[in-house]
Amino acid sequence: QMPRGNLETVHHRALVLAQLRKWLDSLKFREAFECMRKLRINLNLICDHNPKVFLDNIETFITQLNSINDVNLFLTELKEEDTTSTMYPHPESSPIQPQPASGQKKVDVVCDALRGAMESMDPNKFCLSILTAHVKKTVPELEIALQKVHELRENPSEAPGAVSAEEALKYLLFLVNVNDLYEHSLGTYDFDLVLMVAEKSQKDPKEYLPFLNMLKSLEPNYQRYTIDKHLKRYKKALHHLSKCGEQHFPEALQLVKEQKLYSEALRMFSANSSHYKALSCAYAEHLVQQQQAEQAGLLLWRCGEPVSALQAFASSTSWRNAICVAQQIPLPPDQLALLARDLAEKLIEQRRYSEAALLLDQYAKDCEEAILALITGAVWEEALRLIYMHNRQDITETNLKPALLEAVSTQTVFLETQVVTFVRHRTRLAVVREQKEKARLDMLDEDGPDCPDAELYSEASSVMTNSKYSQSNSRISSRSSKNRRKAERKKLSLKEGSPMEDRALMYALGEISTTVDKMREDVHSLLKALVLFEFDKQAEKLQLAYEDALQMMAAAVPEVWPEGLQNNQAPLTGPNSTANSIMASFQQQQKPVVSQQDAEVLTPPKMRNGVKWKLTILK
Amino acid sequence: QMPRGNLETVHHRALVLAQLRKWLDSLKFREAFECMRKLRINLNLICDHNPKVFLDNIETFITQLNSINDVNLFLTELKEEDTTSTMYPHPESSPIQPQPASGQKKVDVVCDALRGAMESMDPNKFCLSILTAHVKKTVPELEIALQKVHELRENPSEAPGAVSAEEALKYLLFLVNVNDLYEHSLGTYDFDLVLMVAEKSQKDPKEYLPFLNMLKSLEPNYQRYTIDKHLKRYKKALHHLSKCGEQHFPEALQLVKEQKLYSEALRMFSANSSHYKALSCAYAEHLVQQQQAEQAGLLLWRCGEPVSALQAFASSTSWRNAICVAQQIPLPPDQLALLARDLAEKLIEQRRYSEAALLLDQYAKDCEEAILALITGAVWEEALRLIYMHNRQDITETNLKPALLEAVSTQTVFLETQVVTFVRHRTRLAVVREQKEKARLDMLDEDGPDCPDAELYSEASSVMTNSKYSQSNSRISSRSSKNRRKAERKKLSLKEGSPMEDRALMYALGEISTTVDKMREDVHSLLKALVLFEFDKQAEKLQLAYEDALQMMAAAVPEVWPEGLQNNQAPLTGPNSTANSIMASFQQQQKPVVSQQDAEVLTPPKMRNGVKWKLTILK
Repeated sequence: QMPRGNLETVHHRALVLAQLRKWLDSLKFREAFECMRKLRINLNLICDHNPKVFLDNIETFITQLNSINDVNLFLTELKEEDTTSTMYPHPESSPIQPQPASGQKKVDVVCDALRGAMESMDPNKFCLSILTAHVKKTVPELEIALQKVHELRENPSEAPGAVSAEEALKYLLFLVNVNDLYEHSLGTYDFDLVLMVAEKSQKDPKEYLPFLNMLKSLEPNYQRYTIDKHLKRYKKALHHLSKCGEQHFPEALQLVKEQKLYSEALRMFSANSSHYKALSCAYAEHLVQQQQAEQAGLLLWRCGEPVSALQAFASSTSWRNAICVAQQIPLPPDQLALLARDLAEKLIEQRRYSEAALLLDQYAKDCEEAILALITGAVWEEALRLIYMHNRQDITETNLKPALLEAVSTQTVFLETQVVTFVRHRTRLAVVREQKEKARLDMLDEDGPDCPDAELYSEASSVMTNSKYSQSNSRISSRSSKNRRKAERKKLSLKEGSPMEDRALMYALGEISTTVDKMREDVHSLLKALVLFEFDKQAEKLQLAYEDALQMMAAAVPEVWPEGLQNNQAPLTGPNSTANSIMASFQQQQKPVVSQQDAEVLTPPKMRNGVKWKLTILK
Repeated sequence: QMPRGNLETVHHRALVLAQLRKWLDSLKFREAFECMRKLRINLNLICDHNPKVFLDNIETFITQLNSINDVNLFLTELKEEDTTSTMYPHPESSPIQPQPASGQKKVDVVCDALRGAMESMDPNKFCLSILTAHVKKTVPELEIALQKVHELRENPSEAPGAVSAEEALKYLLFLVNVNDLYEHSLGTYDFDLVLMVAEKSQKDPKEYLPFLNMLKSLEPNYQRYTIDKHLKRYKKALHHLSKCGEQHFPEALQLVKEQKLYSEALRMFSANSSHYKALSCAYAEHLVQQQQAEQAGLLLWRCGEPVSALQAFASSTSWRNAICVAQQIPLPPDQLALLARDLAEKLIEQRRYSEAALLLDQYAKDCEEAILALITGAVWEEALRLIYMHNRQDITETNLKPALLEAVSTQTVFLETQVVTFVRHRTRLAVVREQKEKARLDMLDEDGPDCPDAELYSEASSVMTNSKYSQSNSRISSRSSKNRRKAERKKLSLKEGSPMEDRALMYALGEISTTVDKMREDVHSLLKALVLFEFDKQAEKLQLAYEDALQMMAAAVPEVWPEGLQNNQAPLTGPNSTANSIMASFQQQQKPVVSQQDAEVLTPPKMRNGVKWKLTILK
């Protein structure tokens, strides 16, 4: 942007900037400021040039400017933008200034620093600049500014040249929208201030006076509440309303519900009050709607609402808490048994058989159902424990042994299918890799290494930079993350010929290995139970099948996840290669390689070889 | 190797080999064989040249040779070595023959194929060659060869030119050491054959005749057992001894113990016999010595030795089995309670508090100790369940609440130290990386990219190709693997200035992240318990501290484990670079990168963000 006018005023910007930098480096702020104003150079450069030096010499800056108008000009031009990287970049030769890494914003830092300096230098003299510094912050501090105006009115400064409240307010109105200022003046709860602002505004006294008079008539806390609510400052409103006593509690409860200020509200009322209880119940109701019934139960239980708590715990299958509350109520034995059965049923649906068995055994007093739940869940040792505890060896013959035989055949068949799928994927992977490598080399042969299409066929090209395959180890996993992972898996299609088929196959092979590896504990406990009941042959067959599967998958690792897959293409060198062709071939390999999200597909699954599952007595 | 003699017989080997290959490709085996014999070329080349073609045309080969001596010569020269890759490599231009990938050894495959062909062509004519094929196998089939000699003696062939048993035996003795042959003849249990071999040997009849006569006097099974034992074939010996009836069982048991043939022995006796029981007890004793007491217990229990089984189960803390056996015996109540206490004590030592509590509660009938165990183990909900079950709310005040407060402060302090260590390591890592990068660039500047020392300073150089950092997810982990990992960790020293300090820091940072991430479940259950007892402030503090720690560690991931760390050095290009210098700079980066064992240090730790631990009701 050049100033219009005579040619004399045209300056070469690079020269000007060089001169400005020199001035700023030697702390000649006045010269720099004058020049920048004249040539319309953004004033932000003064602090952006070297923020640390500027902040360390902020008093020098103010002293040199020695003009409230100039300080205000500087303040009003402040922007978050760093002009040394956008408008006035350093020439390349100069060292890059390290940016201050604090989380604070530049504008706020500069405003606060200037204001602090001016307040310690001469708060009266710099009054308007101080107000500007408040108003220019990222979140304007209008209340504080107004408060200062109000103080000026209460205690006018006697100093020569001091600013009057009137002047200060006028200046503020020049900086800020009058309605904003009115609202914020209300927020100080200072009616003098409100009136002062209102009078300066275009507002009709017929409108605001009745409202102010109504407010004035209210009890102080309720007055503040009303103002806060008017200004939509609901937390403050609640705080003031909570001090208004018994008769206003329903209003408070209403506010809490409307604005969902439950946890804030609980902190405002004492834990043993009836209000606290009412708030807890309201919160609990809200939490149940938010699928947080267990936390609702905790609130209800501790505030002395065991019946509602029981309902909340039961609905979230928080069975231990449910049973505790039920015994505290206390529920009659037959109802307790019913509750236990209900909870057990839910737990069985969630495959939590051991917990279900505990409920059935200890609270529903139905050891048979308990044992059957354990047998269904393949929790063999625990099933046997209950059988002996309740002297029900008959169940061993009728249920346990048949279930063991069924389990061993299920596990064997499952292993077989896993192994078959693994072998099929592995074979297909070899084919796909060969095809891709061939296609890639053909491409390079035809078009030379600069051909961008070649990359399409490279091994590494199937890296998807925007996806994750997070294999969470936990079984507790939120639904949303499950859905997300499902969606991501879809991108990796196993369909023959799909562009990322090789990745999909590697992912599938990793999944199978992990699934089979996870069976260690189950296979171990099944083998022990089989041996105990002399099903040695079945146990031997399973042990052999499982060992074979594990060994086969471990042996496939070097082939499926070769070391250095991430760099598996030999650099293209030879008599005809040039520096450029070599560079190109490296870049093709490197570009798609780096994504860390792929690391999981490229890394072989971890086998938990530390988990010993084999029985010595089976050969 | 050239034949000595006239110059006429000197041939250029490459030309000879080319000719041989042509003959072999056109199945002219006779010509090839003659030439190879004359020029002393290893006969293995005949089958190595193209194994598939050779095996497919094995009858043609035999027919063309048409000489038992020549076939024998070929058989005796067979070696496992592949002469096409060692002695007579293919010239580079010819396509590489795919090797048959079967697990079988070449010598065995060729011997079996030749023998099969000769047996179907004319077993009488090729008798000696067939014997050679048996003897030349990797594990010589001497019994079969001897058996064939014996058959010749029983049924001499009437065919013209047929080999007599006498001739065949002489031939065998020429191939095999006479003592080996004598031992193996014993192994056929055929005394005629033994005598036949013995007579041909240099053995003194005064020595072998009494032994053979003694053997002849024995009951057939016991006779075979004696021979098997003499030949150290213990499994066969046990098999024959097991058929010798009651009076020989002590001898069998002795053999089983000496040779550790327990599982084989169990399969030879019926499960309900007293022998089976005796064997099981012996096996169990052995298993206990081998630290496999649980499996010993299973054997003892199922063979009806509950008292010994109980001891075995108790010593291996297989507490469910121990309790079941104890109730089967049945142990009197006071002894059962003592047993339960003993087991619980061991479980507490292993930090298995829930199981200990079950024993104390249900079998020792000591609910107070059970609750205290659960409180010690921070199993809050289960502790509360037992408190309500046994109506012992007093323990809530005396023990549970104080323990909760202690736990929250322990966890908070632990988090603080983890965070402090994390920040310290992270800061140090940045310093180390900067130093390494600087040193590397300095090196390259001085010596050019070919300097091998430069690699010492490169980021990737700290990759240790021979180590693994296997972070097993299981808590069950064998002692040996723990020790191994410990030793590996030592190699990565955190000492300032150690050559792999950066890797050590990354490893340590990963470990801290994983440790903190693992606290999710514990923190969640602690928070719920704190809220229940209205320790909201402590809970809020912990929730905040934990959230900060997790966020800080997640935010550090891009810095500590930058994407593409494995290729993080820009290729050295510029006006002065050459094809060679670029290659060198790439190779420096690539060489140490590929090891997959490093992937774990280079990959950021997986955070289980699916495990929700935060409470909504705490803000």
